Amino acid sequence: MVKTYVDKVIGDLYVLRVDDEETKYFESLWYIPEGITYNAYLLIGDKVVLFDGWKSRYSDLLINELSKVIDPKDIDYIVVHHMEQDHSGSLPKVLKANEFRAMVLGHPMVRGMVESFYGIKPKFRVVKDGDVLDLGKYSLRFAYTPWLHWPETIVTYIKELSTLISCDVFGGYSIPKALYDNELTSDELSKYLDYARKYVITVVGHYKDYIVKGIEKLRSLNVDIKVIAPAHGLLWRGSPEVIVSKYVEWARGVPKDRKVTVIYDSMYGYVEEAIKVVIEELSKLGIDVKVYAFTENSRPAIGDVLSDVTDSSSLIIGVSTYEGEAFPEIVRMANLIAMKAAFSKPVAIITAYGWGGMATKQITDILTKAGYEVIKTIEFKGKPDEQTIRELRGLAKELVS
Amino acid sequence: MVKTYVDKVIGDLYVLRVDDEETKYFESLWYIPEGITYNAYLLIGDKVVLFDGWKSRYSDLLINELSKVIDPKDIDYIVVHHMEQDHSGSLPKVLKANEFRAMVLGHPMVRGMVESFYGIKPKFRVVKDGDVLDLGKYSLRFAYTPWLHWPETIVTYIKELSTLISCDVFGGYSIPKALYDNELTSDELSKYLDYARKYVITVVGHYKDYIVKGIEKLRSLNVDIKVIAPAHGLLWRGSPEVIVSKYVEWARGVPKDRKVTVIYDSMYGYVEEAIKVVIEELSKLGIDVKVYAFTENSRPAIGDVLSDVTDSSSLIIGVSTYEGEAFPEIVRMANLIAMKAAFSKPVAIITAYGWGGMATKQITDILTKAGYEVIKTIEFKGKPDEQTIRELRGLAKELVS
Repeated sequence: MVKTYVDKVIGDLYVLRVDDEETKYFESLWYIPEGITYNAYLLIGDKVVLFDGWKSRYSDLLINELSKVIDPKDIDYIVVHHMEQDHSGSLPKVLKANEFRAMVLGHPMVRGMVESFYGIKPKFRVVKDGDVLDLGKYSLRFAYTPWLHWPETIVTYIKELSTLISCDVFGGYSIPKALYDNELTSDELSKYLDYARKYVITVVGHYKDYIVKGIEKLRSLNVDIKVIAPAHGLLWRGSPEVIVSKYVEWARGVPKDRKVTVIYDSMYGYVEEAIKVVIEELSKLGIDVKVYAFTENSRPAIGDVLSDVTDSSSLIIGVSTYEGEAFPEIVRMANLIAMKAAFSKPVAIITAYGWGGMATKQITDILTKAGYEVIKTIEFKGKPDEQTIRELRGLAKELVS
Repeated sequence: MVKTYVDKVIGDLYVLRVDDEETKYFESLWYIPEGITYNAYLLIGDKVVLFDGWKSRYSDLLINELSKVIDPKDIDYIVVHHMEQDHSGSLPKVLKANEFRAMVLGHPMVRGMVESFYGIKPKFRVVKDGDVLDLGKYSLRFAYTPWLHWPETIVTYIKELSTLISCDVFGGYSIPKALYDNELTSDELSKYLDYARKYVITVVGHYKDYIVKGIEKLRSLNVDIKVIAPAHGLLWRGSPEVIVSKYVEWARGVPKDRKVTVIYDSMYGYVEEAIKVVIEELSKLGIDVKVYAFTENSRPAIGDVLSDVTDSSSLIIGVSTYEGEAFPEIVRMANLIAMKAAFSKPVAIITAYGWGGMATKQITDILTKAGYEVIKTIEFKGKPDEQTIRELRGLAKELVS
């Protein structure tokens, strides 16, 4: 049974949320056992405006929920903030239920995308960056927020409600047990913020500089934001400034004090043996160590790794030599870090080899190009010997000094 | 309870097999729910010779099994064909039980590797390519088989038994219910050969040209081979020529008639929609189609994909555009194909995009460099339109004509 919510957020603004516990890999990439929600919004003033929608498979459910509040035929405008299918998938069925009366509003690219994605041609009006649409009781102010998360992405500010409908930005993974930030305990909120960090780095990490730009742009509008209403996860009507400042921190990769993420493979236990020495030393120093091991019996979720990289103060990569090169899973992980979490953090690389190879250089090249600073490399043949063990013990202190 | 076997193979040659159902990812890379066996061999003539061993965690078990046949102290020689730890891991404990009396025989590189892997310095004698060690009743003829699967790898031919102890070559994944090829039904044997194909392409695929060279070398020795005794999987004493010819076919990527492997991701269902059109047409033509989909809810094992690529007549790659580039899981898969299964087979690439991108070129570049011939590319924006559907229908015929 799919769970849905309709609730009045503020004034005449409703949230329509559906909980997706079915999707195993978001974007077919990120493992999300925690699930995700899709949040659409409905504003009932002198005109009826629907903002975004749900994933295609929940279209009928959305129409059902909408019908509890209004007749879908009465929707005057549908604002498409972002064409990705988890928001726009319900558009064809909603428009059908609406008998295609509504005017679709969006970035100029949206018109063509609606046609190529769904084979429909609804009434469409372009909104320009900064446009204000006066609808009597309420007015909608649109802002372009390119690459948050596609080039056509926009957000809407409703002045009369001091509310920002922010689409992907300020969203998060997971299915919060409440709709609003101020209905969670601080532990629950802290857990949610972990999911939000994972969301932002996996989905928008590649465009993270645009997060900072987008937020600067919103701030430059000098508008009062009391409520942030994103398309995934929690709505913020208690402390919206929390999610804004967190988003800036994550986009910048601001490290938590004394958090180190360790990523390694181990084919025969040698890299693991070396890594355990470092972890032991880090733990003695009171460091929060997150460990991701690719071994015979373990395979971490790539999104979890990226999420912990984001707020780490430094990284340790342990890598085996495989056919003369770096172990493929570590190459893959390094490439994902370069793609999604390209920060300037210090990295140490610990490499095991059997007869030779290029593993250290390969990982160094990928991470250095992405902005990381490789401050130490330790290589050893076969099992780490005593000299190597001493170096490994020293590494912990170097990393956190 | 770990299952072990000791059995007389031929003359005074024993096999010692252990079934590993614990390792989830072989080489920490290849998902093997089918398991794997480690086969060591023991020859009791005028001298006692142990060939290879088991993985370290099964050392005590191996000593236990050995003790059923001989006193470990009586082992005169230990032939190390290959230093990888699934064969050599038991060496330290076996040598200890042997009180370090045995002479270790191996490629010149083995001496240093034994020390760096295990911190021990047993008695060691280098064997040269072509050396024959006369042990009275039996003689051992050694042949270097570099890169099958490491540079130090050798095999042993026992003339008096017409038996080749072949280490990784001629091995396979899975835990066969019998020890020997001629004790399986033809269905079981056919299933085993699928696992052997997966084994060879995942583990030795990068060095596949050396398989052909190695087999040519063995043939040039003009020796009679009645029994092939590999380090993993089935022993061949019924029809050893079967596994030899299969290994040559797989190393060369010889296609089965009318088998096509389809690999695709689908983020929003569009690529899947396109792929299904092609699959439908291929099926109408009686083609055996293997399909691997990276979607919201499915994640194929990379080793299975490589295995089916090996004996396919052509490939179809369906790829989404992700952040302007090819979907990461398909890039990863293409790179693995280039690394492990670099054949000259025809490929068609089907690409979906939302607003633009380089996905087709990216996948084309990776596969072309590896030897594949991209014979057709089809790109479409959003959902495949009628013109695209027609092209897709035509593709099936082009691929198998």
